[in-house]
Amino acid sequence: MVTITVIGSGNVAHHLIQAFSQSTAVELVQLFARDSRALEQFSGLAEITDDLSGLKPADLYVIAVSDDAIGMLSERLPFENRLVVHTSGSVSIEGLDHKNRRGVFYPLQTFSKNKTVDFDKIPICLEAQTPDDYKMLETVAGALSKKVYPIDSTQRQALHVAAVFVNNFVNHLYAMGADICDANQIPFEILKPLILETADKVMTLTPNEAQTGPAKRNDAATIQKHLDFLPDNQQKIYELLTHSIQHGQKL
Amino acid sequence: MVTITVIGSGNVAHHLIQAFSQSTAVELVQLFARDSRALEQFSGLAEITDDLSGLKPADLYVIAVSDDAIGMLSERLPFENRLVVHTSGSVSIEGLDHKNRRGVFYPLQTFSKNKTVDFDKIPICLEAQTPDDYKMLETVAGALSKKVYPIDSTQRQALHVAAVFVNNFVNHLYAMGADICDANQIPFEILKPLILETADKVMTLTPNEAQTGPAKRNDAATIQKHLDFLPDNQQKIYELLTHSIQHGQKL
Repeated sequence: MVTITVIGSGNVAHHLIQAFSQSTAVELVQLFARDSRALEQFSGLAEITDDLSGLKPADLYVIAVSDDAIGMLSERLPFENRLVVHTSGSVSIEGLDHKNRRGVFYPLQTFSKNKTVDFDKIPICLEAQTPDDYKMLETVAGALSKKVYPIDSTQRQALHVAAVFVNNFVNHLYAMGADICDANQIPFEILKPLILETADKVMTLTPNEAQTGPAKRNDAATIQKHLDFLPDNQQKIYELLTHSIQHGQKL
Repeated sequence: MVTITVIGSGNVAHHLIQAFSQSTAVELVQLFARDSRALEQFSGLAEITDDLSGLKPADLYVIAVSDDAIGMLSERLPFENRLVVHTSGSVSIEGLDHKNRRGVFYPLQTFSKNKTVDFDKIPICLEAQTPDDYKMLETVAGALSKKVYPIDSTQRQALHVAAVFVNNFVNHLYAMGADICDANQIPFEILKPLILETADKVMTLTPNEAQTGPAKRNDAATIQKHLDFLPDNQQKIYELLTHSIQHGQKL
């Protein structure tokens, strides 16, 4: 049984605490937040504290805070030589203070407090400095998810950028679709099956195989009609993405 | 029972023929293709012909061909005052020859020949010139799908542009994610749960509510790190979409 203390009270911390509390392979020791009221709902699961200097021994400390707070928090930990991981996609393993053993426990998913996610389908990307530490992280990750990957800091950086494209930017394109619907008294509802099918298609086809549309088939007349229809901001995005589909270059 | 002749042999025609053949509310009369071999697989369902001048009477003629062939094909139909519809998102109802009654039967989905779709979840957008013709189209659409919407030519144009954003462009962002993975020896597999969850999220939240990421939270350090990491083509797209999330204007 791996004993774990979670540090943080944001979306990722919330989902991790929930998932850890449901696993029999791990035991929550303490939950830390600067403002301990943010963790009130978990008061039955573990001791809640806002006192970093009084942290108790645990096998693993999971720092799930915003990227710029990771370094400072890891420096302020009142112990040495224990295993400390962060959960960030974009911070290197070297961003953790060197007095402790370092690692990364990065669940690659988009978390919202008001939407539950099925943790056992979330890929967890692990990095550690020694095989023993990796093994411990693998045990913990394996207790939550069936998809566990060794990913080093360089790969994780790439993965985080890729995630921005397929999540943040994709969602922004959904927002543009919704704006266009709103402006024309069309229910956004009508686009939802297309949104789901577009995602589902790349589960079995590669994105290149799945590509369709006026850009792909070089349908200049339709492209021009669309450009004429769009306001400035959306026109620029339409133009650039169309050009990229037509002339796209690989990395 | 509405009798239908389908004109065309592309993806949309294939899926429509299949769906019509499974419905008890409609009856297929003929299937037309310039090269009738393209419809060989449907030879048990209806008469297949490559002779436009010999088309038999039917209640409804569905022209499912490429956008630029619709007008010409509708002109060459050897009859008058029958109901003729096209299936295009981007061609006006006025793109059909005026000697026949005109309409539009636009299934809003992305079709690939090698992937089956569940037709009863596909929104079908209808337009007609008279209430009677609309009613007939509604009967036919209702036999295939639970989601049937009256959408006029201006709205359909807007909808088609919106569909390009949430389908073609979204898929291109998936392709960029896959390219970034490839270049860094990361399996694309690892992004798939995120892709599905991103789509699933906007089934219950609005895209604006669902927006997360460095652009949304104005995380300049991460944005700069990502820009430095990306090659030219992807950098430009990253920059423009980030700017649009930060300063986006509504239509």
